[in-house]
Amino acid sequence: MSAERYAIGIDLGGTYIKAAVVTETGMVLDERQVETPAGRQREAVAEKMGTLLTKLLQKHPEAVGIGIGSPGLVDAERNMIRESPNFPGWKNVPLRLMIAERVKRPVFLENDVNCFGLAEHRWGAGQGSQFMLALALGTGVGGAVIINGQLYRGSSGAAGELGHISVDMQGPQCPCGNYGCIERYLGNKWFVAAAQVELTDKSVTSPEEITRRAESGDAAAIRFLEGRGEILGAACTSLMNIFDPEVIVIGGGLAQSGEPLFRGIRKAIQERSYQSLLKEIKILPAKLGKSAGARGAAAVGLDAGETQ
Amino acid sequence: MSAERYAIGIDLGGTYIKAAVVTETGMVLDERQVETPAGRQREAVAEKMGTLLTKLLQKHPEAVGIGIGSPGLVDAERNMIRESPNFPGWKNVPLRLMIAERVKRPVFLENDVNCFGLAEHRWGAGQGSQFMLALALGTGVGGAVIINGQLYRGSSGAAGELGHISVDMQGPQCPCGNYGCIERYLGNKWFVAAAQVELTDKSVTSPEEITRRAESGDAAAIRFLEGRGEILGAACTSLMNIFDPEVIVIGGGLAQSGEPLFRGIRKAIQERSYQSLLKEIKILPAKLGKSAGARGAAAVGLDAGETQ
Repeated sequence: MSAERYAIGIDLGGTYIKAAVVTETGMVLDERQVETPAGRQREAVAEKMGTLLTKLLQKHPEAVGIGIGSPGLVDAERNMIRESPNFPGWKNVPLRLMIAERVKRPVFLENDVNCFGLAEHRWGAGQGSQFMLALALGTGVGGAVIINGQLYRGSSGAAGELGHISVDMQGPQCPCGNYGCIERYLGNKWFVAAAQVELTDKSVTSPEEITRRAESGDAAAIRFLEGRGEILGAACTSLMNIFDPEVIVIGGGLAQSGEPLFRGIRKAIQERSYQSLLKEIKILPAKLGKSAGARGAAAVGLDAGETQ
Repeated sequence: MSAERYAIGIDLGGTYIKAAVVTETGMVLDERQVETPAGRQREAVAEKMGTLLTKLLQKHPEAVGIGIGSPGLVDAERNMIRESPNFPGWKNVPLRLMIAERVKRPVFLENDVNCFGLAEHRWGAGQGSQFMLALALGTGVGGAVIINGQLYRGSSGAAGELGHISVDMQGPQCPCGNYGCIERYLGNKWFVAAAQVELTDKSVTSPEEITRRAESGDAAAIRFLEGRGEILGAACTSLMNIFDPEVIVIGGGLAQSGEPLFRGIRKAIQERSYQSLLKEIKILPAKLGKSAGARGAAAVGLDAGETQ
């Protein structure tokens, strides 16, 4: 075949299993999604994922690799999911092997936020950069670090937990054990709880509602989003001093809150950063939307396929 | 010659210019120091450094390279010192060229704390690790990051400013522009100022004095050192979540304060870290003492000599 190489990426979420077939230049040849089995049992998840992949492989038999993005801690050799907060009972699940047995193809595992970061780096907001950080604002706050154009995994595969950088060592405790983590201010449920307090309105139940209010000109909602942005910007300042990146990409649901959040981020960075670093930094919203995770998993498949 | 390759390293400090001739296995063949010219004028500094190097090169003519470690921001191509807080008026000083002209040899520049980190990684406390962070507690708090066994410099050469990670976004302002940086709690003068307050004793004028008091059993001094350690440990926790390192090396004068400081660091990490990261981390005092900077500069010379 003279066409481009392509791979299949799977994004394992608590609600959906998404799949994308993606070429080296980022063209999406196919996209699917199925519901994650209720109960999220490992065998049921593997079975459903296997069936989805088998169908896709019938249609796209030349896939050079299969990548799977999973929430939680993926081990350094990327064979297993060490633990995953939203998949109770998942401890050292050999998902790579479980899927490879079903589809008779090489399979590669990666953390889901790392996949998001990879996709945004290769085909999205961070394209062309060598040093990029990505933050994904969702239920939790995830992170990914790109160094010299490559995903940085650390000594045991657990690096890039940028949501667990603390902005206040005496702040509220985070489930991770640390205090004042940015996840504790920007993770969906804490974001909403803080909004209820700051807007003195218990009827606020979702980040989208705050965004809607801000868009319709509600000054308190705008101010709340700016304030959350400032917290994020304070963390970004520390990250700039540590990494000296070219670009920080902000994605996930909350990144849709638009201008007030980004204004807060930029304000904090402006006030807090070394002037020489400030000149060069770009803070950008993610570009690829909800399929970034599956696309990044396909990138893992493309890269791994190369080294086979 | 059948002997080991060696290089010359220079550590440019506000008080002394130190030099070390070091082999690939870390053997120090020669060490010298001269006083930094009063006024710290760039031409006077270059002249004195040139004279020192010329003498050393007469005795060690086979040096494969010369590395210079300098405080301040070194540019990405490592030709110039962009700025240096303790060398007033130094803006874009082409120190590499100024020295190369004098000694007729290739010369390589690096940030001084990066040199410290390189030396501790290659021949000191971090030996054998692939992922290492180093903190140098002195007038300021400097940092170095080793990734895959290599110094990490970032997109413009300014990475690794670990002293400017904030532990409290509403904390005291740091000269860098940020608030609550660990430098603002552990840099010598702030460390002493905080001790005066906490020990309600204006006669404390140096970190060494607090260490002496702690060693002689003064409970307030011990508690103060532990508390400073906890601040450092809180920052280390964020750094572990970000980098997933194998080892964090703590050096500089304050690291001599011994057990209470390290106890505080370990306590904070114990309380705050992901349990799976905690199992694997080592927090170690630096090993190479005051010549680490010059030795690391020699490592820069050795590495650069290789690629010539």
